[in-house]
Order: sequence, then structure tokens, then C-alpha cells
Amino acid sequence: MKQKFFDLEINTKGQKLYDFTTHIINWIKKNNLKNGILNLNIQHTSASLIVQENADPDVQTDLINYFNKLVPMDNSLYIHTAEGKDDMPAHIKSSLTNNQLTLSVKNGDVILGTWQGLYLFEHRLEPQRRIIIHHYIGD
Amino acid sequence: MKQKFFDLEINTKGQKLYDFTTHIINWIKKNNLKNGILNLNIQHTSASLIVQENADPDVQTDLINYFNKLVPMDNSLYIHTAEGKDDMPAHIKSSLTNNQLTLSVKNGDVILGTWQGLYLFEHRLEPQRRIIIHHYIGD
Amino acid sequence: MKQKFFDLEINTKGQKLYDFTTHIINWIKKNNLKNGILNLNIQHTSASLIVQENADPDVQTDLINYFNKLVPMDNSLYIHTAEGKDDMPAHIKSSLTNNQLTLSVKNGDVILGTWQGLYLFEHRLEPQRRIIIHHYIGD
Repeated sequence: MKQKFFDLEINTKGQKLYDFTTHIINWIKKNNLKNGILNLNIQHTSASLIVQENADPDVQTDLINYFNKLVPMDNSLYIHTAEGKDDMPAHIKSSLTNNQLTLSVKNGDVILGTWQGLYLFEHRLEPQRRIIIHHYIGD
Repeated sequence: MKQKFFDLEINTKGQKLYDFTTHIINWIKKNNLKNGILNLNIQHTSASLIVQENADPDVQTDLINYFNKLVPMDNSLYIHTAEGKDDMPAHIKSSLTNNQLTLSVKNGDVILGTWQGLYLFEHRLEPQRRIIIHHYIGD
Repeated sequence: MKQKFFDLEINTKGQKLYDFTTHIINWIKKNNLKNGILNLNIQHTSASLIVQENADPDVQTDLINYFNKLVPMDNSLYIHTAEGKDDMPAHIKSSLTNNQLTLSVKNGDVILGTWQGLYLFEHRLEPQRRIIIHHYIGD
């Protein structure tokens, strides 16, 4: 049994989806990982990890707009407002999506559908330093 | 350490929850899997994998109705409309739920509560061919 | 390869977030687990497992309030009402969040960000007996 850990740092610049699919494919190849589980955990509660469509970028715009309407940045709605109007909505969005993903690696490739990409979904407006922990367990 | 992969194909016919619990129980038995992790990934971003109540079918109807109200099929709300009024809402619903589930297998049985079933939650209106990747790692 | 199972019982008393982070840290230490995957599954479909901020308790209050507004306890909105006005909303909230979490253990510690805690998110109003299955696989 082989295990491998890595901390990926992504410096975000506002609400956006940040594609890290290519990084994952390369990390698996570089470490010669063949078959196993790749567990990803983001170390924050105001950004998410999601799998979404990688074809039409409008999907990402619609997703961001939708979540902003669903969870308004309106301080009058929340008690926890000290960290800015986008902070409590960011925590809520993180609970409505995911903070971790468990992927499968088969024959050296991460298993993803043709139209699937891996994204860090940033919910904060200001630049943030985000860490995604990689943990591989397999052979 | 033992690993086993399988691609389950489900042909969906519209918005509905498709129960695949019995398939999972049988697949574990057939492959003589004892203790380990079963990672399930759906290869699409317009359908979900969820664990829900398996007792009263009204729960499923309420769930579908709720999600349709929460994420309206109204083209005026979205930019990405080329694939039909149900496509962008399907992407959003997929991010609001899950595209993967990590289950535990103990003594040859998948660990689920008494009232829990495994479902493919189809968000598209037209028939779709859906693939759920199974990946077992254990002994 | 080492595997370890445990059933954690939490008796909830109404809608609240129940922090079980310290229990997890202690369980890993007590069992001398070093590097591996810890898969957590809640055996119910009306409560969730989430990772949220552990600093300001107002975040939890805002989260509960938000979910109550998003999924109203109003019997006129649902068909499945026999188990009380809070039951169908609890099923919906469980699908909007998560019923399982897959954590990574490194050098005997669960990997969590500085401000992250592990919570059982109870959606029912009356006291409930909840079971969270622990499954560790690693070395």
C-alpha cells in the first residue's frame, strides 16, 4: 500500500471557479500513482471543491450568479457580519456545496467524465490563499 | 489490498430518483468483497448521487418538486440555455447535491441505515445514459 | 493494511450543530492510527455531517436560520407530512448538505484547517438518537 500527501496552494482573486484538473492529472503522473483513492480536502469554510462542466464557461457564470441570488450578500440577514458582507454567505455556500471530494485513480488516470472538470469555487470577494490537501492511498 | 472497478450504466427516463441499492448489495456479494471503501462517481454534471429515505415514495416527489422550485427552469434566468431549459438548472442542482459518494463495506455489507437507499437523482427531462463508476479498495 | 470500525452515538436535542471534532481526534489517538482515510457516514436522512467554522458561534446560528428560511417548515408545501412539519424539510436539508465525509489522517492527526470543526447538523426539532459510522483504512 502506497500513500502520498501534497498541499496545493491556490491564490484566488475573487468569486470564481478555478480549474485545477490539469494539476491533478500531472500530480498523479509525476508520482507514478496507478490505482487508488485520491481524497481532496479544502482547509477553509468559505470556498468549495466541486466537479462541474468544463465546456461552456457560461455554466460557471450562471453558477456564480445563481449562488449569489440564493445566498444574498446582505448584512441585515445575518448575525456574523464582522468579516464582511461576503463572509457569512461564503460559509453558507460552502455547506450547500462540498469541502471535499474523493476521486478514483485507475491505470494512472483520475476518473472523470468527458465534460467534467475539478474546480475550487471561491466565495470570497477579496484575494485569498487557499490550500487543498491531496491524499492518495492505493498501489 | 484488493481493488475492483465497475461501470454501472443506468438509462434514465426523465426527472426521477433511480434506486440502485440492490445492485450495490449484489455487486459486493458477487465480488466477495469483505471490508473496504466503495467510492462511487457519476460521470456527469447534470445528475447526482444521493442517499435518501427508502420508505415513503412521497419523499422523492417532494424532493423533486422542491428542487424544481429552488432552481427554476426559466431560460431568462441563465446565459447557458443552448441545451434546453432544464440543462443549466441540472448543473446547479448537481452542485447543490453530490456527484460522488464514499461508502463503507463491513463484513460483506454496505453500511446504510435502515431507512437509507442509494439513488441516482436525474435532473434532465429527456432520456439519458448515465455511468456510475464503482471503485472498491479494501481486503 | 489496517481497518477499524466504530459507531458513534450522539443524542441530539433539537436543531443545532453538534461538534464532534475532539471525539475524532481522540478516537484516532486511542486506536493509534497513523496515515489513512477516515470515512464517516451518518445513518439517517434527516441530519447531516458538515465541516464548518469553529470560531464564532454566530456562524452556526446564521446557518440554521438560513436553512430554515430556504426550506420552510410549512406542511402545505409537501406531500410527506405524516412525521411532522420538520421531517420533509429535514430530508431536503440533508440532500442540500452531506450525509458523509471522507477525512484524511496524517501522522496521527485528522487533517482539518485551523478554523474547521466537524459537526452533526441536526434538522429535526425533537430529540433523536443519531449514529455516525467511523471507518478507517490505512496503516
